[in-house]
Amino acid sequence: MLATRFNKPFDITVEQFPDPRPVDPADATVEILYSAICGSDLWTYRGIVPHAPGGIGHEFMGRVLDVGADVTSVRPGDTVIAPFAFSEGHCDQCRSGLQPLCEDSGIWGKDWAGAQAQAIRVPFADATLVPLPWSAGELDTELARLLMPLCDVYATGTHGAVLAGVGPGDTVVVIGDGAVGISAAHAARRMGAGRVVLLGEQPARLTVAEGFDVETLRVSRDESPVARVRELLGGRLPDRVVECVGAQAAFDTALEVVAPGGAVGYVGVPHGVEPVAPMRLFARQINLCGGVAPARRYLPGLIDEVRAGGLDLSALIDRTLALADAPKGYAAMDTGTALKVLLETTGGSHGD
Amino acid sequence: MLATRFNKPFDITVEQFPDPRPVDPADATVEILYSAICGSDLWTYRGIVPHAPGGIGHEFMGRVLDVGADVTSVRPGDTVIAPFAFSEGHCDQCRSGLQPLCEDSGIWGKDWAGAQAQAIRVPFADATLVPLPWSAGELDTELARLLMPLCDVYATGTHGAVLAGVGPGDTVVVIGDGAVGISAAHAARRMGAGRVVLLGEQPARLTVAEGFDVETLRVSRDESPVARVRELLGGRLPDRVVECVGAQAAFDTALEVVAPGGAVGYVGVPHGVEPVAPMRLFARQINLCGGVAPARRYLPGLIDEVRAGGLDLSALIDRTLALADAPKGYAAMDTGTALKVLLETTGGSHGD
Repeated sequence: MLATRFNKPFDITVEQFPDPRPVDPADATVEILYSAICGSDLWTYRGIVPHAPGGIGHEFMGRVLDVGADVTSVRPGDTVIAPFAFSEGHCDQCRSGLQPLCEDSGIWGKDWAGAQAQAIRVPFADATLVPLPWSAGELDTELARLLMPLCDVYATGTHGAVLAGVGPGDTVVVIGDGAVGISAAHAARRMGAGRVVLLGEQPARLTVAEGFDVETLRVSRDESPVARVRELLGGRLPDRVVECVGAQAAFDTALEVVAPGGAVGYVGVPHGVEPVAPMRLFARQINLCGGVAPARRYLPGLIDEVRAGGLDLSALIDRTLALADAPKGYAAMDTGTALKVLLETTGGSHGD
Repeated sequence: MLATRFNKPFDITVEQFPDPRPVDPADATVEILYSAICGSDLWTYRGIVPHAPGGIGHEFMGRVLDVGADVTSVRPGDTVIAPFAFSEGHCDQCRSGLQPLCEDSGIWGKDWAGAQAQAIRVPFADATLVPLPWSAGELDTELARLLMPLCDVYATGTHGAVLAGVGPGDTVVVIGDGAVGISAAHAARRMGAGRVVLLGEQPARLTVAEGFDVETLRVSRDESPVARVRELLGGRLPDRVVECVGAQAAFDTALEVVAPGGAVGYVGVPHGVEPVAPMRLFARQINLCGGVAPARRYLPGLIDEVRAGGLDLSALIDRTLALADAPKGYAAMDTGTALKVLLETTGGSHGD
């Protein structure tokens, strides 16, 4: 099968890999119909996050090929979508909906084979895969663009809003104009927030956010946006802030812009973010809560909403490429000419 | 009038001070009938927290002497109790129940005259003072022992449990066997927690906690209690941890002992606690939330509970002294021979 291979920073190729086969009785193998490139893959691409040469990518949906003897929830031929992390399903963390904290959890393309591939072996298939209510034939590019954001970016944005405690009528500021930030802003609206303001740098992305009924404020990395946020909000600061970048400047902005007594949810994996003095949080009673999103927890409900026609994040995916063109997709996202790239891993010839 | 005076570490005297008089139309003056020594006064006494020579103490109840022209909620002769901090009552923070974050807030004996005194001038009297449903004649030492914990320690312990998100059935670990820690454990029980375990060092204090239907674990500063907590809880760690000390070891223990996905509420003012890496919290999805308790928010409800006979924290006060003996009270709390000292500031001759 074909799959992307991370060779070294700024060097991604598409190579032949051995076809995966079930090994454990809890395994399934999945023919991947669609994968995607995530903003977090760019940290790897740019050499900021070390990555051994090999497979990459953690978003996919497809069709079950084979299942191990213990698998009961899916059968060969079923269509499925996966969260960006697998988990075993029985521990306290899994049962309480915190699957990424499962001790046997891992992320595709990091702790496991990459998902920018034509197939993948899935451990703990019952706990990991989520069946889709569409046949493989129905799973066209349009539907894939609706579903793909749920694997990671929309689940992560939703989790940020949940961690920040967003509720009806709240005023929310989201930091970051990537797909996760836009997702967090959208999720905050969906959760009933009164005003949602997204802070970002790139006009094209702010326009996408505005399409989701989100206010935006274009900011530069060199100035604190606190005064401008306060002005926009009529002299107040937001009670809820969602930080979706994971860099120092964004984290600082989050802690500066949140109102006294407010909460910061952070879902951008902190890269080199400096430690925070507890006294700094204590002095303004800031609730700080971050973590990896349990996409597996959110997926079934989000799929239901897509099916009901109430959730359309397809605007987050502004380019579709064949798997063979994945390197072009990385380059486009790196230069900001694409927000999020969908990869058609079979060339579209998967009618059933 | 007489009041305690902090001269230098380990040197407290009782001196004559000028009688307070109302200055601002929103002021009241209060004849203090009872004051107390707080565990946080010990940080000052021991020289850990700098304090200018002068008044000290932030817990009191008494009888209104005079009110300014703008005061409407209390009249001369009314009995009142005060939270440990005053606040102006109209800003966003005050109205949302986060009074210590009010920009005009201050703590008695730190930002204002001390409350270990026979009288005090109270700014923002309407917003600050809480009327008591007892006459001055009814306010005997027994009732004062029931009410005094509400000014600070019980409100602070309650706030810690609130910040940690304690709810029905939760398993809670409280760190610290001072009056705040015991209060937090009691509050967690009152909020419906399933199991509450208090970690402390001093057997006499653990016994007080046990009297409130709280499990205890005697620990030493030199060993991590994580393994012992896990054993006590049948292999699990607590989802909710309340840190009531404010020192590095206690803070470390809180972050180590909380279960993945759990929350740490911290109400011990952090003294020299080292900064925390966001990645450390992110990796285990720990919610960290601390701050100064809005005692003013909690006081009315707690007074109602005392009146209804459902709240008796008098065991937290194990010594009663005359104001003139306040230096002995400090020494007793410093050496651990008293948990919390009540000061009778008028000698008990305040019948009406």
